[in-house]
Amino acid sequence: MKLLEEKIRQEGKVIGTDILKVDMFLNHQIDVNLLDEMGKEFYRLFKDKGVNKILTVESSGIAIAVMAAKYFNVPVVFAKKANHKNVGTDLYTAKSHSFTHGKDYNMAVSKKYLSSEDNILIIDDFLAGGNASFAMLDILKQSGANLVGIGIAIEKGFQDGGKKLREMGIEVESLAIVDGMSEAEGVRFRGQ
Amino acid sequence: MKLLEEKIRQEGKVIGTDILKVDMFLNHQIDVNLLDEMGKEFYRLFKDKGVNKILTVESSGIAIAVMAAKYFNVPVVFAKKANHKNVGTDLYTAKSHSFTHGKDYNMAVSKKYLSSEDNILIIDDFLAGGNASFAMLDILKQSGANLVGIGIAIEKGFQDGGKKLREMGIEVESLAIVDGMSEAEGVRFRGQ
Repeated sequence: MKLLEEKIRQEGKVIGTDILKVDMFLNHQIDVNLLDEMGKEFYRLFKDKGVNKILTVESSGIAIAVMAAKYFNVPVVFAKKANHKNVGTDLYTAKSHSFTHGKDYNMAVSKKYLSSEDNILIIDDFLAGGNASFAMLDILKQSGANLVGIGIAIEKGFQDGGKKLREMGIEVESLAIVDGMSEAEGVRFRGQ
Repeated sequence: MKLLEEKIRQEGKVIGTDILKVDMFLNHQIDVNLLDEMGKEFYRLFKDKGVNKILTVESSGIAIAVMAAKYFNVPVVFAKKANHKNVGTDLYTAKSHSFTHGKDYNMAVSKKYLSSEDNILIIDDFLAGGNASFAMLDILKQSGANLVGIGIAIEKGFQDGGKKLREMGIEVESLAIVDGMSEAEGVRFRGQ
């Protein structure tokens, strides 16, 4: 998606060869017009797949998922991290690891909001090693829900999460795939 | 806001006299059409106040803030809880207490995204004792930004956060104010 790639190029900040900071428009401050275009693009990519619910994980996935959900006209369910007092005990849970926080955490979704009737589109802001996606897949499997596909804002194509997921036969659509980056040369996108 | 009050009455769940669960449409599963109407209502209430940025706090505030921001055509900044590796060190921070999690936490906003040029609308999902709001006010004060007002989805009117904030001269607009609740009789809204 050209608009997102341009935004990353103009405002994203590369630290080392591994960290891409996009907190000026996606992960801390949010550009809602860009977000709206991203939501529209996810709709274009998955609109014929019978999606009836979007699954994401707090916090950064929520904004993108909600914008996309408006186009699909379906609810969003966001997986919670750690133990929320108000989530209840009747949960699907999976272990994941946060690259951003440098630690393991539990992801949880109430059993009330996922079932074998559901056709789920997973949406998230980043895909790198795929930890969050694999935890959500685990939760979907427990619920019996069907996975339609995975929509990602920014994929780090030089890590293997996207490759693994696609090799499992899953449709993964990333709006921007970064194949390499450095502080000196910035970001190189797939196909460029 | 009638639509939200009806939704709370139909789908909200009262536990004891203190916990109102709205995780079926706001805090875990999100009804995006309701959210859109709430965003529109916040815009109606604050549209003439020169808002140039919306401040909220992760996670549950993000969805509401983003939907409202679309109507205002302004960015959202969401305060982060705890220590995110990627936020950076140049931060405004404030201590708060989470009723939901039963513990204290630090709220942080990067100095890059708040300044004395800003006219801020705070948006959050719940207002009870006001801990999150007071922490955001503290952060605004550090940044020199101007506070336009506070928009809340659901205020627990039987706790004193709203009263304290209004007594400070702040315009607090809550889309639903719950003045009392019990498992037997459900929710009583202000003005009913």
